[in-house]
Amino acid sequence: MRENVMGLTVVLADGRIIKTGSLARKSAAGYDLTHLFVGAEGTLGVIVDVTLRLHPQPESVAAASCTFESIRDAVETAIETIQLGVGVARMELMDDAQVDACNRYSKTTFPVAPTLFFEFHGDSERSVNDQAETVRKIAEEHHGRGFRSFTSPEEREALWKMRHEAYFANVAIRRGGKMFTTDICVPISRLADCIVESKKDVANAPFPAPVVGTSETAIFTCPSFWIREIPAELAEARRVEEKIIRRALEMGGTCTGEHGIGTGRIQYLREEHGAGLDAMRAIKQAFDPDNRMNPGKMVEPRLLFGGSV
Amino acid sequence: MRENVMGLTVVLADGRIIKTGSLARKSAAGYDLTHLFVGAEGTLGVIVDVTLRLHPQPESVAAASCTFESIRDAVETAIETIQLGVGVARMELMDDAQVDACNRYSKTTFPVAPTLFFEFHGDSERSVNDQAETVRKIAEEHHGRGFRSFTSPEEREALWKMRHEAYFANVAIRRGGKMFTTDICVPISRLADCIVESKKDVANAPFPAPVVGTSETAIFTCPSFWIREIPAELAEARRVEEKIIRRALEMGGTCTGEHGIGTGRIQYLREEHGAGLDAMRAIKQAFDPDNRMNPGKMVEPRLLFGGSV
Repeated sequence: MRENVMGLTVVLADGRIIKTGSLARKSAAGYDLTHLFVGAEGTLGVIVDVTLRLHPQPESVAAASCTFESIRDAVETAIETIQLGVGVARMELMDDAQVDACNRYSKTTFPVAPTLFFEFHGDSERSVNDQAETVRKIAEEHHGRGFRSFTSPEEREALWKMRHEAYFANVAIRRGGKMFTTDICVPISRLADCIVESKKDVANAPFPAPVVGTSETAIFTCPSFWIREIPAELAEARRVEEKIIRRALEMGGTCTGEHGIGTGRIQYLREEHGAGLDAMRAIKQAFDPDNRMNPGKMVEPRLLFGGSV
Repeated sequence: MRENVMGLTVVLADGRIIKTGSLARKSAAGYDLTHLFVGAEGTLGVIVDVTLRLHPQPESVAAASCTFESIRDAVETAIETIQLGVGVARMELMDDAQVDACNRYSKTTFPVAPTLFFEFHGDSERSVNDQAETVRKIAEEHHGRGFRSFTSPEEREALWKMRHEAYFANVAIRRGGKMFTTDICVPISRLADCIVESKKDVANAPFPAPVVGTSETAIFTCPSFWIREIPAELAEARRVEEKIIRRALEMGGTCTGEHGIGTGRIQYLREEHGAGLDAMRAIKQAFDPDNRMNPGKMVEPRLLFGGSV
């Protein structure tokens, strides 16, 4: 998304209104304020207008799914697909628990196994078929079974509807459960180790913890914990979350790929950015000295046991 | 280039060293410092380490050229190619004067006319052929003549060598001339008007002013003036430059697409960014209060007739 933002209108803390970027494709005139405000969670100003780059509908679209013997095989297929530069438009990963939950909720019949779902875009039918064929071969080398293509719009729609309903599918496996997600992102080369190890962390957890991830960016919501709001489950969810995030940071990754920092992940910012956090706070101070813009979020020092991080 | 920078190591004005970004594909953890430092021309810190995203060599590559009756036809072909989402890897524009200069210098034999040069990348030979065929059809609708494909690596190399030598080709058309370039970038929809009008500005100039541009981003170095260092030519070059830049800004474009602000374009920053320039200066002040980092460049107020801009 970020790279499709061409320009913004932003109201600053002192009431001034600025415009960033332009409709020109490229500019080397001044600092890149657009990227600074995108993802700043409103702590530097209020975005009141966004100019987005539009993309034409692709000439041809196809989708596919492939199941694997192990989640490592699935992830290694995703890694190799990325590293070969196959331009998949989407590549989503689910573990067996997530596929099972989705089948029950969305009335689909995907084999209950670690699965990759793909979407291919191209200038022609031949081009998307070529992409699908390349991915099928990669999957076969990693023990992929039953590579299945979905060419009709109805089939594709059913597939992605199922994916979009994953949240509700998970709500349904534990009525009264509350979602507690991680959305770490690690370097592609570490993704398989990261997912396999993170799954071990929750193997004996007292709550369901299905895995779903966006493999083309190596972000995965692994796992979502479906906890009941009782202290024991909450404490265990926090303990496992911390373990998963620390591992992602050790692997050179980030504590949040898409969801953001808010208040919940403030404690990991220093660990992730070191002195970079001071640079962020200097910008916050320069733009909003009275701390009016979404106070308490993202870069704000959080008082912990009398000290601050 | 900008979008291939994954992370930086930067030495700040106070000697602190920070790391920005990571090897993870995406992150929502904190402000995007990477994009802030890229293109800041060293005014916020010294970049000492850069981590770049690598792309695999494409499976298949082809190049093509097409000449047009008018520069407007050429630019409209470029615009339509972009708007249709044909994923051209390169699309370069030359006017007849530039082609002529290049032919003389690089011993090529391209027809002396407004010309587009293309490079296509794809997963397969079929895919690049499909792209070339789509572009050929678009060009035909705009009176393109003699669409010519270059499939062998030797032919492609000769084509791009000629393009890379454009600077030296221009040096050769006026021995002792000094380059004076513009590199404005405007919204794609205004590109044809912008180039046609800018060419009129230099039609009667006392120096050669060939046009070369990177059409896939709508940046064009239009024109490069090959002036002799005499006051009359310098004054005329400055006058025309100002006219071309002002028009680009009126069209919603930028005074510099790639070359940067430095000292030469400081005077246009306020016009381009309005109050946004104050936001940039606030960041400069926060990072470098003693003005040690590349002083005098980009965001620095320039004293003009006792006032400042």
